[in-house]
Amino acid sequence: MQRIGDTEHLYGIHAVREALMAGRRRIHQIYISEKRISQRIRKLIALAESSRIPVRYVSSETIRSILKADKHQGIGAEVSPYPFVDLNRLLVTFKEDADVPLLLLLDNIVDPQNMGGLIRTASCVGVNGVVIPKDRSASPTPTVSRASAGALEHISIIQVANLVRTIRTLKEKGIWIMGLDRAADNPIFFSDVTGPIALVVGGEEKGIRSLVRQNCDMLVSIPQTGGIDSLNASAAGAVAMYEIYRQRQLTKAK
Amino acid sequence: MQRIGDTEHLYGIHAVREALMAGRRRIHQIYISEKRISQRIRKLIALAESSRIPVRYVSSETIRSILKADKHQGIGAEVSPYPFVDLNRLLVTFKEDADVPLLLLLDNIVDPQNMGGLIRTASCVGVNGVVIPKDRSASPTPTVSRASAGALEHISIIQVANLVRTIRTLKEKGIWIMGLDRAADNPIFFSDVTGPIALVVGGEEKGIRSLVRQNCDMLVSIPQTGGIDSLNASAAGAVAMYEIYRQRQLTKAK
Repeated sequence: MQRIGDTEHLYGIHAVREALMAGRRRIHQIYISEKRISQRIRKLIALAESSRIPVRYVSSETIRSILKADKHQGIGAEVSPYPFVDLNRLLVTFKEDADVPLLLLLDNIVDPQNMGGLIRTASCVGVNGVVIPKDRSASPTPTVSRASAGALEHISIIQVANLVRTIRTLKEKGIWIMGLDRAADNPIFFSDVTGPIALVVGGEEKGIRSLVRQNCDMLVSIPQTGGIDSLNASAAGAVAMYEIYRQRQLTKAK
Repeated sequence: MQRIGDTEHLYGIHAVREALMAGRRRIHQIYISEKRISQRIRKLIALAESSRIPVRYVSSETIRSILKADKHQGIGAEVSPYPFVDLNRLLVTFKEDADVPLLLLLDNIVDPQNMGGLIRTASCVGVNGVVIPKDRSASPTPTVSRASAGALEHISIIQVANLVRTIRTLKEKGIWIMGLDRAADNPIFFSDVTGPIALVVGGEEKGIRSLVRQNCDMLVSIPQTGGIDSLNASAAGAVAMYEIYRQRQLTKAK
């Protein structure tokens, strides 16, 4: 998956700090805008220096031309490509883990902000891995890393060529495939979601693709009172992930 | 609150369409980019014409210079200012309404994207009104309207000079003030949230201001497993609003 020699430019305080903390990418160099050295950035410089990562102080103009991004908060880093995780290696860890597995499958999520938001929430509820298709999907770019507040640097992302094939593999492992669909009859709040689950969240415009939908074991909805509006994909995913979390906590308490 | 004669420029398909549907703002003129007339925009033009609103076809360059926004989807509208709602008038409607009131109070939400996301979700769960402070807060600008997918055009927004004074007024009306605080001991999932509630959501960096926090009847948290990450304000608000919705549906069903 990784092309050796490729580099990316992370930007924003959270993304750069979490890449440092996670230690999964090689960090070749950190760029700091001379004029924007805050307390938070000073801590980050100390962290970089303790890891012997070169820090370059540059002008705002230089940082903008290197990072090709507006919301950089005066910091960027030249890093090795995003470290994908292999599905089979992830599945092996499920046997060792005491907790019931929870996976997030993203279908048709093309907006990096939505993808980043979903990954950030997934990290907060302890999702084991996020599966994204190679095509018709945003990729885990620096923009997604920033939108996830750096959660992308810690979470396990599995990029697959064929989401339906992955769904079949997961089913064989006893994982229940649950699609979030606004037209579904079963509200998630009244469905049992305590077992091993892969939650499928679709894009805002088109939802889950029909072939993926057909391969779900169950479709659930998030009820909505307003006539015209529909939930943002990232908000819908957050509500669904936390309903799963809530039900599991209740089961544990029993 | 409204300054007569002022105009704003809404942009994006959802925001313009929902302003038309809601009928709360005067719409002086609609601008369409000649080169981007999709099926969705054609429907919107028909709707505008049936309401006798002038439609002007302009170049992409003109639309960009009028709207001063990038993500305009080839459409904009010159409209009267945002129609705020008066708190006392809203409170009167609570007596007539059969449902238990739910208000959303935003404190320190400075990012228009977060404000738009919160308003969109609030609309989906049927929140009666959203209270925002005049200072240290984003305003219901066209950017917020677009980020809310037009939900801003339908929902009741109350802008107040002093949030603490509003909280006191709400308490006198028997409304329970519930602050969302990541450090609170009570997870919202194990708290009774079926009564009349004003949910206070704070900004991402600073959370709820301490004077506002002191005036809450109760503080609740959304549990998080990951060590470092914290939920995005918009996601946290969505999870909390839907937990209130869920518990109320359960109570109704009994």
